[in-house]
Amino acid sequence: MLKKILIANRGEIALRVIRACRELGIETLAVYSEADEQSIHCQVADDAICIGPAASSESYLKADRILSAAELANVDAIHPGYGFLSENADFAEQCESCNIKFIGPSSNTIRIMGDKALARETVKAAKVPTVPGSAGAIQDDKEALKLAKEIGFPVIIKAVSGGGGRGMRVAHNAVAFQREFESARNEAEKAFGDASVYVEKFIQDPRHIEFQILADEHGKIVHLGERDCSVQRRHQKVIEEAPSPFLSSDLRRKMGRAAVKAAEAANYQNAGTIEFLVDKNGDFYFIEMNTRIQVEHPVTEIVTGIDLIKKQIQIASGEPLGIEQKQVRISGKHAIECRICAEDPSRNFAPSPGEIKLYFPPGGPGVRVDSHVYSGYPVPPHYDSMIGKLITYGETREEAIVHMNRALKEYLIRGINTNIPFLQAIVSDPVFRQGQTTTRYVEEFLARTPRYLLSPTQPDKV
Amino acid sequence: MLKKILIANRGEIALRVIRACRELGIETLAVYSEADEQSIHCQVADDAICIGPAASSESYLKADRILSAAELANVDAIHPGYGFLSENADFAEQCESCNIKFIGPSSNTIRIMGDKALARETVKAAKVPTVPGSAGAIQDDKEALKLAKEIGFPVIIKAVSGGGGRGMRVAHNAVAFQREFESARNEAEKAFGDASVYVEKFIQDPRHIEFQILADEHGKIVHLGERDCSVQRRHQKVIEEAPSPFLSSDLRRKMGRAAVKAAEAANYQNAGTIEFLVDKNGDFYFIEMNTRIQVEHPVTEIVTGIDLIKKQIQIASGEPLGIEQKQVRISGKHAIECRICAEDPSRNFAPSPGEIKLYFPPGGPGVRVDSHVYSGYPVPPHYDSMIGKLITYGETREEAIVHMNRALKEYLIRGINTNIPFLQAIVSDPVFRQGQTTTRYVEEFLARTPRYLLSPTQPDKV
Repeated sequence: MLKKILIANRGEIALRVIRACRELGIETLAVYSEADEQSIHCQVADDAICIGPAASSESYLKADRILSAAELANVDAIHPGYGFLSENADFAEQCESCNIKFIGPSSNTIRIMGDKALARETVKAAKVPTVPGSAGAIQDDKEALKLAKEIGFPVIIKAVSGGGGRGMRVAHNAVAFQREFESARNEAEKAFGDASVYVEKFIQDPRHIEFQILADEHGKIVHLGERDCSVQRRHQKVIEEAPSPFLSSDLRRKMGRAAVKAAEAANYQNAGTIEFLVDKNGDFYFIEMNTRIQVEHPVTEIVTGIDLIKKQIQIASGEPLGIEQKQVRISGKHAIECRICAEDPSRNFAPSPGEIKLYFPPGGPGVRVDSHVYSGYPVPPHYDSMIGKLITYGETREEAIVHMNRALKEYLIRGINTNIPFLQAIVSDPVFRQGQTTTRYVEEFLARTPRYLLSPTQPDKV
Repeated sequence: MLKKILIANRGEIALRVIRACRELGIETLAVYSEADEQSIHCQVADDAICIGPAASSESYLKADRILSAAELANVDAIHPGYGFLSENADFAEQCESCNIKFIGPSSNTIRIMGDKALARETVKAAKVPTVPGSAGAIQDDKEALKLAKEIGFPVIIKAVSGGGGRGMRVAHNAVAFQREFESARNEAEKAFGDASVYVEKFIQDPRHIEFQILADEHGKIVHLGERDCSVQRRHQKVIEEAPSPFLSSDLRRKMGRAAVKAAEAANYQNAGTIEFLVDKNGDFYFIEMNTRIQVEHPVTEIVTGIDLIKKQIQIASGEPLGIEQKQVRISGKHAIECRICAEDPSRNFAPSPGEIKLYFPPGGPGVRVDSHVYSGYPVPPHYDSMIGKLITYGETREEAIVHMNRALKEYLIRGINTNIPFLQAIVSDPVFRQGQTTTRYVEEFLARTPRYLLSPTQPDKV
């Protein structure tokens, strides 16, 4: 078993990894930027090293500083969390060459799955359904238009190195296509330093359903069922749940098998996620694989009873998975996660950094909170606005929603604005309650909801 | 269904009841003493009324003030929580005569089960095993000594109106008996205004195992399995768990049947608890019934998936229980609760009231926190020292303990002293880990543990 792990991340996921390490008896080393000196993850880790100024590019994205800290402290592994360097194949390769275990798949797998066009070709070869589209990156706009016409409009243009919705454009006809193709290339160049894009059929009103994969280093791969992440705003997930209210057990079986095939095709090791779009007929299409732990992993932990971070570490230690597919219990509980963000939903979700004056997280039955903040914590302006995850669960989806509604009402965060009113409005919305959400849902919801109803003003009592 | 409930309590249990009401769509009225104005339960309730000065006798125990508040606000029920007026038959009767539903059994049942001698006779008549002892209160010391000799030493002397270990004495021989008999009577007179005591055989090194009962108003009674509360300090529970590591499924079935018989004998309605002592041979003896919700109810909620507070309210609303005994799933998860108290275990558990400077409750997988405190909360000196409950759970007892260990380490409470180091030491102790605790365990543990190891000093970082 690994003895000492550096956690190359911050916020709730750093804390989550430290929790797993503690429970496994593994020593932890936190790293932090100057903006995160007061962060809980530095307090609860066995040791902590500052790796640079607040800007991510100067700290959490600085591979050499993190590797120096790792060598200085003599750790035997690095857990990258999500975001930052977690899907950076070069970083994983550097770890490999320093003989420090990168807790994730091999750099080679990250490289293949990180190139969206190559990823698609890889899983397609394994007979996993993919969205009809270009075989790879497509440079020429005339050639691209010709292909778009062949596929049939609407089509979607996506950055090869993309993620988080940037460098992604939908075109409904040939005229729009020429404009959007250029925009997507420019945006991709700016965001990822790589203008390459590819073109795919745009699936109308799909659900986003992803499968959790676990693969050990001895060739064993299982899936842990799905998460429905259709509630997205600008391609950013807002609410996730397991199981999906949409999937039949037959479709779950089919998609699960496809997910395992996709992971096999990538020679996958460790925890990963296969993302699919599912249309209303139940046809499903691979869109991408995330080669790291996901923000929304807790909902899977709750419905399966399996600790995913511990499994990541055990797999990286060389342990056999010890789970057969037929032993995975998907049913039983239902779990829902809301991402709590420091932002103002009534002002177009503008970030709201600053000091949290009072923090009272919800508790009681059916509630799990993963968060690193506390009263007096200064939410820094430098990073993602997510300050915590509220997960509720019950015997049924309805029970999980009832807990979520109550827990959101009870969540007191004063001093900054949060998206809690937005989450409350969604959780109370009949479309969500009936499990009828598609990836267009939030857009439709916002179009019919007056902004003042999403205003985050909370009474200043206490 | 009830529409508006007054919560005649404070602290975590007031918050717990409000959570259940919210999830059922029931309006809530909090009451508070002048010392509790800043308490969260007042903030999250729909309305709150001050009922008097800090001293319990002037507020939370003032039946007339609480009933005035109830009539003023036009509530249709009162939830008494635990402690305070929860087992006060006169208060329940006053509620009945004001036509306000008391959420609990009838005043008559409370009266019978509140008189320990009468309670014993009642269940004995239903063939539930009881500890050999006096038929009722015994006044005369000569008669008492004669009886003690008949039963055989050691014997225990208990206050008829007692609770929480006060007015309770063990005598190992005739000389000691005469002394302890007088002491018990004096202590009982002081604590409960009633010197009556009774005498029982003292069971050596027993386990304290209690069964949760639910009974509706239509004659249906089920039990929800047991809680093992053997880890006690001076008859106050410290750590509770479900299921008990000691019970065989055969013994569980026998004791469950006895618990249901005891509840039937008391014409029981609503949630209640039948407490037993179990000796090392598996012989069990009824000791008392608690006619209210217990502090440790969450461990049962976790292993059965049943929300006990909601059930209390639904039963009080006249709804049928809707659960058959055979539908109750006892197995599956294992849950453990630690009571977090503002006290200094290195100085004989002296209370430690004062302002909490920093409060960071544990989170992540397998953790439930029921607490009303927050950074800046002033722990008042007037009430019980419990400031929260930490409940952890897993697929196995071992997993629940691993979570508990980690969660206790992560629990940051600065500004006051807490019993967390004491809890940590117990949770790490081989005797506890192996599930070998009896009601004498804490005493033995403290005798072999240097006090400085229980010192609650935490580093003052953050």
